[in-house]
Amino acid sequence: MHTPSIKTLLASLSPLPSVLVRGWVRTRRDAKGFSFLELNDGSCLANLQCVVDETVPGGDRLKEILTGAAVAVQGELIPSPAKGQQWELKAVSLELIGPAPEDYPLQKKRHSDEFLRSIAHLRPRTNKFGALFRIRSEASFAVHDFFRNQGFTYVHTPILTGSDCEGAGELFRVTALPRGSKEDAAADFFGRDAFLTVSGQLEAEPLALSLGKVYTFGPTFRAENSNTARHAAEFWMIEPEMAFFDLTANMDLAEAFVKAVARHLLDHCAADLALFNQWVDKECLARLTQVADAPFERLEYREAVRLLQAACDAGESFQYPVAFGTDLQTEHERYLAEKKFGKPVFLCNYPASIKPFYMRVNDDQETVAAMDLLVPTVGELIGGSQREERLEVLQARMQAQGLDPAPYWWYLELRQYGSAPHAGFGLGFERLLMFATGIPNIRDVIAYPRTPGSLEF
Amino acid sequence: MHTPSIKTLLASLSPLPSVLVRGWVRTRRDAKGFSFLELNDGSCLANLQCVVDETVPGGDRLKEILTGAAVAVQGELIPSPAKGQQWELKAVSLELIGPAPEDYPLQKKRHSDEFLRSIAHLRPRTNKFGALFRIRSEASFAVHDFFRNQGFTYVHTPILTGSDCEGAGELFRVTALPRGSKEDAAADFFGRDAFLTVSGQLEAEPLALSLGKVYTFGPTFRAENSNTARHAAEFWMIEPEMAFFDLTANMDLAEAFVKAVARHLLDHCAADLALFNQWVDKECLARLTQVADAPFERLEYREAVRLLQAACDAGESFQYPVAFGTDLQTEHERYLAEKKFGKPVFLCNYPASIKPFYMRVNDDQETVAAMDLLVPTVGELIGGSQREERLEVLQARMQAQGLDPAPYWWYLELRQYGSAPHAGFGLGFERLLMFATGIPNIRDVIAYPRTPGSLEF
Repeated sequence: MHTPSIKTLLASLSPLPSVLVRGWVRTRRDAKGFSFLELNDGSCLANLQCVVDETVPGGDRLKEILTGAAVAVQGELIPSPAKGQQWELKAVSLELIGPAPEDYPLQKKRHSDEFLRSIAHLRPRTNKFGALFRIRSEASFAVHDFFRNQGFTYVHTPILTGSDCEGAGELFRVTALPRGSKEDAAADFFGRDAFLTVSGQLEAEPLALSLGKVYTFGPTFRAENSNTARHAAEFWMIEPEMAFFDLTANMDLAEAFVKAVARHLLDHCAADLALFNQWVDKECLARLTQVADAPFERLEYREAVRLLQAACDAGESFQYPVAFGTDLQTEHERYLAEKKFGKPVFLCNYPASIKPFYMRVNDDQETVAAMDLLVPTVGELIGGSQREERLEVLQARMQAQGLDPAPYWWYLELRQYGSAPHAGFGLGFERLLMFATGIPNIRDVIAYPRTPGSLEF
Repeated sequence: MHTPSIKTLLASLSPLPSVLVRGWVRTRRDAKGFSFLELNDGSCLANLQCVVDETVPGGDRLKEILTGAAVAVQGELIPSPAKGQQWELKAVSLELIGPAPEDYPLQKKRHSDEFLRSIAHLRPRTNKFGALFRIRSEASFAVHDFFRNQGFTYVHTPILTGSDCEGAGELFRVTALPRGSKEDAAADFFGRDAFLTVSGQLEAEPLALSLGKVYTFGPTFRAENSNTARHAAEFWMIEPEMAFFDLTANMDLAEAFVKAVARHLLDHCAADLALFNQWVDKECLARLTQVADAPFERLEYREAVRLLQAACDAGESFQYPVAFGTDLQTEHERYLAEKKFGKPVFLCNYPASIKPFYMRVNDDQETVAAMDLLVPTVGELIGGSQREERLEVLQARMQAQGLDPAPYWWYLELRQYGSAPHAGFGLGFERLLMFATGIPNIRDVIAYPRTPGSLEF
């Protein structure tokens, strides 16, 4: 039998004579001869209040129904006399589908984030994580919807890769050989070393240079042994790549994209966002609204360094010093986005010395056409660049960075066969969710977070 | 400058006095004093014919422009006198952005699939692969659109997992230790063995038992050393999981889902599908239309075995024998879907002995509430089941299959805390694309296929 969701019922325009709902009991309150069951089915934050008389079929089991139990309630949807809810369900029958014991871990009280991480299989049953996962889903849809409307093709770049894309070295290796095997890479599944991707960019470029505008949205990996609130070993990235785009077009797209996702969440997740605005971060709604409506700032890296140095001179204290040629730290990024401009800021044209080989060298020979988007609370949200489309310049950059060109033969060939200016960027999806909800720890925006030493579930 | 796509231009309702297009030259044909450039920008299958006079700015470089070159053409969109196209571009200026040499690998002729696999970075520039990747993108969107409209939450289950989900054993192992390292699992990144997931189902179940209806859409992996046209080491799966669904509701959803994707492709990819219908599989449009419009067949496994045995008796020759308790082979699946019924067929209630521990045991104690969807040309497209929600039955099944329950503590807890009937299925996305296009080799529906010994790009 098809069961309407509680979300659908609560949005009903009129009473309904006979409906069946199934869900989990959040609380039971007893009165004389009847009980109130607060029922949640995950379709929305709100519960449906069910008023169940002891005398209805199944009502004799009312007292067995504890927090966490799965039940089915049949009844009449009627206007609720209670405050704050339009409808309630007057039960005509009750079925206890799956009981929950008295020691069910999610009793009605606040639980610490640490405790909830230890029960990742149950935490989506809390208001907070239910809301988070609905927001995560809507944000994902907003990504696809935005790019499709802009004429992009969604592409799946490989997770398994033979090359260490950015020379970062923090790669997970993949093998089909048993642990401790003495056989070498030639005897392994692919006949060579295989790694988990850190970025789909290099593989997306050939697709952009044929399909025009493409984007990836998939998992990426870092074997970085750092236990911080901002790093996970596995996370999802969105990486658009566009033929015939320069750095300005790239920033225009990135700005339109972030605005569209913010607007989509405001339009489709109002109740769930309100929870975060009330309990987690009182600024998150204001921040999302500002992002959706107000233009972002754009600034040269060089100018940003000047501003940061001036801030230092004026008494701002940073842990790390700043000078032209240094990578900015999160404290610097947040200072610019939060204190200096109070909104998202693009920095562009970074020193070539601190950026990867594939970024396009500017005419000054000192900087590359890179851009980062810095946002309040999380710092860097997006990193991107125009790509080097000139074969000789690219080869020189690879040589300067000590990269063996051999595995990049196909990447280099793109610069020989109808090469064209192109650009793209990467956005860490979990950072976007942290920005939208104010959740400070990446472990709490992922269903089953993977961090050093942590692989449960 | 914003450049309209060729798709947009070819759909124009009126002439346009001044447009700029950028793309890659498919062919150049010379006439007296001018040339025709067939331009493609990946936005659609069709090219835009550009008529370029030698005398326009940049026209002096016309003869340098070979197949594969990237160019920009500015001009006037006017009605085309040529057959089969409504519009052409009369150039007022031409820019050669990136030349292509005479030995550019994609000259205008047919290329073998094997050759094109060796240039995976260039093959999306062919009509066939351009069409395939646009279909792949639209099919992906159809997946998200369908489930969202049905009230599902999109969830990201982990790629890195500590457990061998189905006891299949064909797992890639992931490590942060160097090859040949003598250190054991305790010294590795997660402090234990880590694998690439073969299915997100077990991790999706807790999310269904809280959010109600969820689905995954992400990469999965098999370290299966078999070089066939149907197997890849990395492929994308769609796995919906629904609380309070039984096997019939599961089949209803699967049927509605496959129909919706077929309908979406027919509605949004007509030109690209027509290419496959003409050159690859003359049945693919008819097949998609039938799938979208006609009800699927439903059949007990037991009955299917009887039909197959009857077919044997009537002279049908199969390589593998069939009896109750055997797994059906692709030849049997295709016989049922192609010859016997001529449409998609659900088989349900398989013998428990050939199905995994998590499938719900039927009252006959001999079968489980499993269902497979068999379709013409690819055989099994979907595998699913109602899940065992009864703790004792689940534990007994795990014991019977020799599984250590310890790592499944959280999966078992779902059966203690508000357990509820639930069901789900998995669909291999590449199989769906093979079904839709008639492409016979999985290597040709993936941008960069990963198979034994093959990890290029």
